[in-house]
Amino acid sequence: MDLSSRIEQAMIGAVGIFEMPAGPPRLSEAIGYALFPGGARIRPRLCLTVALASGDDDPAAADAAAAALEMVHCASLVHDDLPCFDDAATRRNRPSLHKAFGEREAVLVGDALIAMAFDVVARGSARHPGRTVALVRCLADSLVPPGGIIAGQAWECESMAEISTYQRAKTGGLFVAAAMAGAIAAGADPLAWRGLGERLGEAYQVADDIRDVAAREEEIGKPVGRDAALGRLNAVRSFGMAAAIARFEGLVDQAQAAIPPCGARRHLQQLIRAEALRLVPEEYLERAA
Amino acid sequence: MDLSSRIEQAMIGAVGIFEMPAGPPRLSEAIGYALFPGGARIRPRLCLTVALASGDDDPAAADAAAAALEMVHCASLVHDDLPCFDDAATRRNRPSLHKAFGEREAVLVGDALIAMAFDVVARGSARHPGRTVALVRCLADSLVPPGGIIAGQAWECESMAEISTYQRAKTGGLFVAAAMAGAIAAGADPLAWRGLGERLGEAYQVADDIRDVAAREEEIGKPVGRDAALGRLNAVRSFGMAAAIARFEGLVDQAQAAIPPCGARRHLQQLIRAEALRLVPEEYLERAA
Repeated sequence: MDLSSRIEQAMIGAVGIFEMPAGPPRLSEAIGYALFPGGARIRPRLCLTVALASGDDDPAAADAAAAALEMVHCASLVHDDLPCFDDAATRRNRPSLHKAFGEREAVLVGDALIAMAFDVVARGSARHPGRTVALVRCLADSLVPPGGIIAGQAWECESMAEISTYQRAKTGGLFVAAAMAGAIAAGADPLAWRGLGERLGEAYQVADDIRDVAAREEEIGKPVGRDAALGRLNAVRSFGMAAAIARFEGLVDQAQAAIPPCGARRHLQQLIRAEALRLVPEEYLERAA
Repeated sequence: MDLSSRIEQAMIGAVGIFEMPAGPPRLSEAIGYALFPGGARIRPRLCLTVALASGDDDPAAADAAAAALEMVHCASLVHDDLPCFDDAATRRNRPSLHKAFGEREAVLVGDALIAMAFDVVARGSARHPGRTVALVRCLADSLVPPGGIIAGQAWECESMAEISTYQRAKTGGLFVAAAMAGAIAAGADPLAWRGLGERLGEAYQVADDIRDVAAREEEIGKPVGRDAALGRLNAVRSFGMAAAIARFEGLVDQAQAAIPPCGARRHLQQLIRAEALRLVPEEYLERAA
């Protein structure tokens, strides 16, 4: 089974357990809307790639960790799109969740996905309860203050924030967790993979900043120019496009170097290079020039 | 140490770990505002009471479970008070969290408290990882569909809901979890305590309905008459005050009967009777008559 199919099956399985017996039908529908169809599934992809590179001796645990990470990522998108934050009308080329289901359902879907993610991890890793403890803590770290994505979002509400602190938390939290959770799920040392997650998270955030300036709406499925409109920190706005591109390239190199010694090292380096080109295609550079 | 002090110490300890190193200062402040000073702390009280009745062989795990339950309860209050739900201006006799800190902080505080609760449980119970798995699943069940409090809140957004299904999820979820988590944390059988949690949860919800009609605002620290104003299901509005009182008394009796055989059984029965009188004092009955 290829990685994409494995991720979708893991997510469908993870969500299915919450539908029996029946809960509120609109909430179920809205949860499905938040999760399917997905975006690039980049966090579960990273998680499973690290699990596979680490032997993947408990695929159910790795699947659970991957699904859980994507669930909390989707939760953060639903809450970030709310009127009180980005007030985004579209996401993934269709109405954002609160536009489609209302603001109350959007708050509840985010809450439910966060809690469901922990349940998924606990169920999926129960064969190795020691790993459950580590996975729950890893997933929580990706969300909570000081370094998680909720703290990252909260920095937007503070009167002053340093751009690297903000971006490390806002995006980095989940990438670090994805790399580490993949290792934990396979019984490997998560600290060996932490650096890869950090570099990829920073690279992804810089890429997102570049896309917000250089992409077209239909290419990224959401409005462009939002950082400027909302007065948010953005690496291109802070340092200029040339510096942002150089920073992105540097982080991609660092991510490749951060892969710990393992049989899959060269394969992983190729994956990162391909992903970098997908995120920031060369035409963005020409367009922004 | 008495139970109240133990609960406050457990909560202060649980929150403290998220403040080092420093995260966004306003988010930290708002999290503290959501948790302290608390209300009756009735869910952690139930959790620790069951843990003590079950031998309390790992007090750190019981403390963690108790603190986590109160954290998710406070998260639900913060989100339920939001403008898109109850639009409540006061809570615990002071401004509700979104009035004091803004709507964005209120969304983030709720999200953070849910995730922090799982972290607290995983850290606190790590000495017995098998209990971690059960505690995480128990805490998640109290939140997620079909039976958790998020599903309960979601029933308010559905076009039709049956009052007992709604109330069981809306309030019952956390009471069931409190009773069961206390048992799990102490290595006892959680199913033996499930019935007590169910009856107390239902009793508490009916009491809340009675208070919404019969109490004065300063007595309960929040506006009264909200169910009628918001068109929500309420046992007094559905069946009349006399029937609601009779239902409350019946549930209190059933809760007392549901306590499993243990040395503390008589003591627990007295606690439940005292709590019932605190929740629905006799003057409410006279006032409503």
